[in-house]
Amino acid sequence: MTLVDSILNGDRLALSRLLSQIENDTDMGRSILSELFAHTGQAHLVGVTGAPGTGKSSLVNHLVRYYRRSTSAVEAPRVAIIAIDPSSPFSGGAILGDRIRMRDLAGDPGVFIRSMASRGSLGGLAKATAALTQAFDAAGFEIIIIETVGAGQAEVDIARLAHTTVVVEAPGFGDEIQAIKAGILEIADVLVINKADRPGAENTERALRSMLDLAHPGSRNFKYSGHHFSSFNLEEVQKEENSQFWRPPIVRTVATEGAGIDELGEKIALHKDHLRQTGDWSHRERARLKAEMDQLLQENLVTRWRKRLPPDVYKETLEGLLQRKYSPREAAALLIRES
Amino acid sequence: MTLVDSILNGDRLALSRLLSQIENDTDMGRSILSELFAHTGQAHLVGVTGAPGTGKSSLVNHLVRYYRRSTSAVEAPRVAIIAIDPSSPFSGGAILGDRIRMRDLAGDPGVFIRSMASRGSLGGLAKATAALTQAFDAAGFEIIIIETVGAGQAEVDIARLAHTTVVVEAPGFGDEIQAIKAGILEIADVLVINKADRPGAENTERALRSMLDLAHPGSRNFKYSGHHFSSFNLEEVQKEENSQFWRPPIVRTVATEGAGIDELGEKIALHKDHLRQTGDWSHRERARLKAEMDQLLQENLVTRWRKRLPPDVYKETLEGLLQRKYSPREAAALLIRES
Repeated sequence: MTLVDSILNGDRLALSRLLSQIENDTDMGRSILSELFAHTGQAHLVGVTGAPGTGKSSLVNHLVRYYRRSTSAVEAPRVAIIAIDPSSPFSGGAILGDRIRMRDLAGDPGVFIRSMASRGSLGGLAKATAALTQAFDAAGFEIIIIETVGAGQAEVDIARLAHTTVVVEAPGFGDEIQAIKAGILEIADVLVINKADRPGAENTERALRSMLDLAHPGSRNFKYSGHHFSSFNLEEVQKEENSQFWRPPIVRTVATEGAGIDELGEKIALHKDHLRQTGDWSHRERARLKAEMDQLLQENLVTRWRKRLPPDVYKETLEGLLQRKYSPREAAALLIRES
Repeated sequence: MTLVDSILNGDRLALSRLLSQIENDTDMGRSILSELFAHTGQAHLVGVTGAPGTGKSSLVNHLVRYYRRSTSAVEAPRVAIIAIDPSSPFSGGAILGDRIRMRDLAGDPGVFIRSMASRGSLGGLAKATAALTQAFDAAGFEIIIIETVGAGQAEVDIARLAHTTVVVEAPGFGDEIQAIKAGILEIADVLVINKADRPGAENTERALRSMLDLAHPGSRNFKYSGHHFSSFNLEEVQKEENSQFWRPPIVRTVATEGAGIDELGEKIALHKDHLRQTGDWSHRERARLKAEMDQLLQENLVTRWRKRLPPDVYKETLEGLLQRKYSPREAAALLIRES
């Protein structure tokens, strides 16, 4: 049996090997992934992002448990977690997080966890994440959680791979709401206030709500919040869906106690339904695949051009640039004429 | 007089016009910048980055005042500030920050402030920042401060434009040191603990120091810190410079009171001397210009390729990708063969 067949048949060891090939960006990894591609497109990709200290990992762990026990009637969905830690290698963040998770979720054959620490460029990380996602998708994982640490634009780019993006806040984390500062509120599909039993949860929710009012001015009177904390009106949700408009719900959780997790799971499922009904699911899919193709195209063009260029021309042009004989723009134009 | 001459002669209105052209990425802006390029390469580029809430803006304002009064004997250096706020447009962060600054530093003809909010892609923002830097450099600003909000990898990429990168922390900001989590400690040339009069400054400094010990194991006994708080040994600095090794100093400041700002200014100047003596100044310059040229080259190659491609081929290939007839890699290879 080939590695491709083994992966399609759910062999964990084979999958694990492919993931390593992908992370090392080998030719073998690329070619297997190309073969597997026809089997992708089924999984629901859920991004979870937020500043350090908001308790994301704990939240994700409980969310996974929710999925694994939620559907007693049918078979529970298989869940993969891609945990991305942009910490420097010497802080060892990814490895530590991995160990804690393994202890929590070990032994469940329906769960697969892969951590990645940022080693090279950020573009490289986003690319590797996209590839890992495809591998899990082909291997039959119905839900793939992409968890990123931090709230910078970079993490946003990775989270954009997802169909549904969950942004996690915590009360009293400095005086500021991290998501607003980092501009990630716009990409949030579901907002979570974790550690909601701490003082300041009210303030955090109020701040998030007014930001949402600003972003979605037509929906000021429409609010859905945790049913633990406020009323939940199904009719309003229905109206919202009919108008093809999605206002990100705010869910309060206390991940360490598992509180609010069921509601979070329901909101994520609701968002998936919304995407399917409005056609946004295919739009996001299209944008994602197009971006990946364009990126590969660009790389190929550069490689091909470099092969055609006479050996010393690049070096000489760079020297001219450093001596300020040409501007960067002139140097680039010159190099293209020479090839 | 042409716009180029006006800018070289220090005309603020002409400069302001160019900056707008650059931000809108016009052909005119690009061509003027190309003409000005021969006059660049003099300025000291200082990046200032750190999480929201650490008091960076206030720190930068005081640093500018320090420069404007520091050299009474010679003419004070002219200072430009590029403030980059990745907040979403509707939060209006950049504009607000701008107003506060204007009030503080308005009327000083040796100071120029330009704010940029993130509107498009992050790559676009880094490119525009590089271009603004060149404009200020050509216009004769000796010090250019690039201030970014946030501590994500994205902000790091922008800060990398700088010769000297200052990373700002504050005590008691959550339980974590933002720089460590975001992996930006490696790019710090000078570390600042702002709001150093708050409880927890000791802990923050201890944490930073042990991270530095891990990153620079050969220099465990070498410490230079604020002379307000600990002893400063010139001989040790000398030894350090001879070994061509730079251990980021930690400076404590209370920006709102102007405390520690002189020391920060001195450390930045010391780092500039270090770069000049070791040749790192030219290395950073070379890496920066090469990256800019490569980026432009890539864009040109893609544009040229698109012109050659038969009209419907791109669309058809994308459709095949969406139907999973080809993988992204196969689609990219196909498109290159067709052109």
